[in-house]
Parts: sequence; C-alpha cells; structure tokens
Amino acid sequence: MIILGIDPGVAIVGYSIIETNGNHFKALEYGAITTDSKLNFPERIKIIYDQLTDIIDTYNPEDLAIEELFFNKNVKTAIKVGQARGVEILAAVNRGLNIYEYTPLQIKQATVGYGRAEKHQVQEMVKMLLNLKEIPKPDDVADALAVAICHGSSLKFKDNFLMK
Amino acid sequence: MIILGIDPGVAIVGYSIIETNGNHFKALEYGAITTDSKLNFPERIKIIYDQLTDIIDTYNPEDLAIEELFFNKNVKTAIKVGQARGVEILAAVNRGLNIYEYTPLQIKQATVGYGRAEKHQVQEMVKMLLNLKEIPKPDDVADALAVAICHGSSLKFKDNFLMK
Repeated sequence: MIILGIDPGVAIVGYSIIETNGNHFKALEYGAITTDSKLNFPERIKIIYDQLTDIIDTYNPEDLAIEELFFNKNVKTAIKVGQARGVEILAAVNRGLNIYEYTPLQIKQATVGYGRAEKHQVQEMVKMLLNLKEIPKPDDVADALAVAICHGSSLKFKDNFLMK
Repeated sequence: MIILGIDPGVAIVGYSIIETNGNHFKALEYGAITTDSKLNFPERIKIIYDQLTDIIDTYNPEDLAIEELFFNKNVKTAIKVGQARGVEILAAVNRGLNIYEYTPLQIKQATVGYGRAEKHQVQEMVKMLLNLKEIPKPDDVADALAVAICHGSSLKFKDNFLMK
C-alpha cells in the first residue's frame, strides 16, 4: 500500500510517499513544498494545491495521513495554517484518497513507542525504519515521513483515525 | 463588474453574485451551500469546492470578496472554519479571480455607514441597495451579499483590501 504523509503548513509543507508491506516501510519520495512569503496567500495555496496534485498523480497513493494542528494561543496563525491544511486535504480528496489524521502523541507512540518522545528520537526512528543515510531536513520532511509511518503501523485500526 | 461574495463556513457557506455599475448594484444570484454534518469533513469541503466552482463557471465573476474570520477563544473552531475558508479561496484563485477580504467593521461601514451597526441594519441596507422584496435568509446569505456590496463600494481603494 502507498501512503502520502503530510506535515501541514504554508511556508513549508513536508510531504512523503512511503510503501508499506507488513511491517516493512520503504520511502519512495519525500521533500518539502515551499512558498515565498512575498507572494499573496491565495497564490501560495494554489502552488501547494498544484504541487500536491502532481505528487499524487505521480505516485497514486491510496491514503493520506496528515498531522493534526494544535495551537494554544495564536488564533491568527491557527486560521492561516488551517486554511492551507484545508487545501492540502482537498488535493487528496479530489483524487479519491481516504484521509486519516494523527496527533503528535500518536505519531510518537507509533514511531518511538513512547508518547513523550523527543523530536530527535522520532527522527532517528524515521531514519532507521526507512533505512535512510541521514535524517531528512528540514524537520517538516521528517515529520511527514513519521505521520506516514504512523498510518502504516495503524492499518489494522485505521478506521479509528479516519478524518470525521 | 461582477463580484462573488462569500461568507465563509463549513455547514453553511453564504454566496452571492452581484453586478456593479457605478453606485448601482444588482443581485444576479445568491444562496447557501450547505453540507451535512454526518458527512466526513473531507467530503464536505469537496462539496463546497465543487459547488463554488460551478457558480464561478456560470457567472464568471472577476473578484472574490470574502469576510475575514474572527475567533476569540475557540481555536478548534477557528481551524475547522479556516480549513473550509482555504478551500473557498482556492476555488476562486483556481479560476483566476482576484481575492479581497473585508472585516465585519468594514462591511458595516460600507453598507450602513457606521462600524457599530447592528446585523439587522446591515440586512435592511442589503435589501434596499439590491431592491429585494425580502431580507435573504439565512443570515449567511445576507452576509455574502453585504461583503460583495462592500467590495463594490470600495473599488476605488480595492488594492488596499487585496488578500496578502
């Protein structure tokens, strides 16, 4: 099964394409879509939508696994990133993918086995599970790989994580 | 000039198409896109995106005028409505519209001439300016007409309100 992982954002959207086969994971592609802050917001979300659509059309993933957003205080930022996340989800649903979402806690548990794991521990596990030479940079890319692995590990329970 | 007005939302998206000619406004179409809360969120935003695209293709508006979101406390709601608003903006930018946004204060000033106007005063002005028999229901539809009128009244200054 092929999974698209996304770490949502506006300036940097981490994405990954992994293939799962039982407990074996293989990274087919990963990287970041970046948008220049000098562009207007509508232009930026169009770039994100178009590039994600291209990635989906190239790899034909079945499922999207996307990280949930958490903001404690800054409602302005929450709205802005939320707007981009809506477009990221739309790109997937417009190509017929099923959409799953995971919290940072679930991602840490699925990769490190411990909900309070540190970021670098998650990144080391991503590197190890995918047999990569280095930890992918920036963090958004490693996060996109981690959420895809989390979904791959949760396939037995996947209906629990379907986006409502 | 033809303007698309949107009052952003998930369950109810108010929309309007108005034609402006100097200080004269004419409503060509208005209504609400509604999505059933029993559907998953990705399905709901796809419905919104597809229906908005159809409306744009029917009336070929040049500009989108959309209300800004304000939330004081509920960050979860802000993210959810933000995600839908992102998709509403994308539908317009994917058809080449220019995107403008207005605050509730600006909309009240442009319609009633008074930033602290009550909702029913805005609605009465919408009815009068567009020569309607009744105040459109639900409120989201009247709001979508009001933001389009606001943009029509601001055309001289429109660059100020371009979405950044």
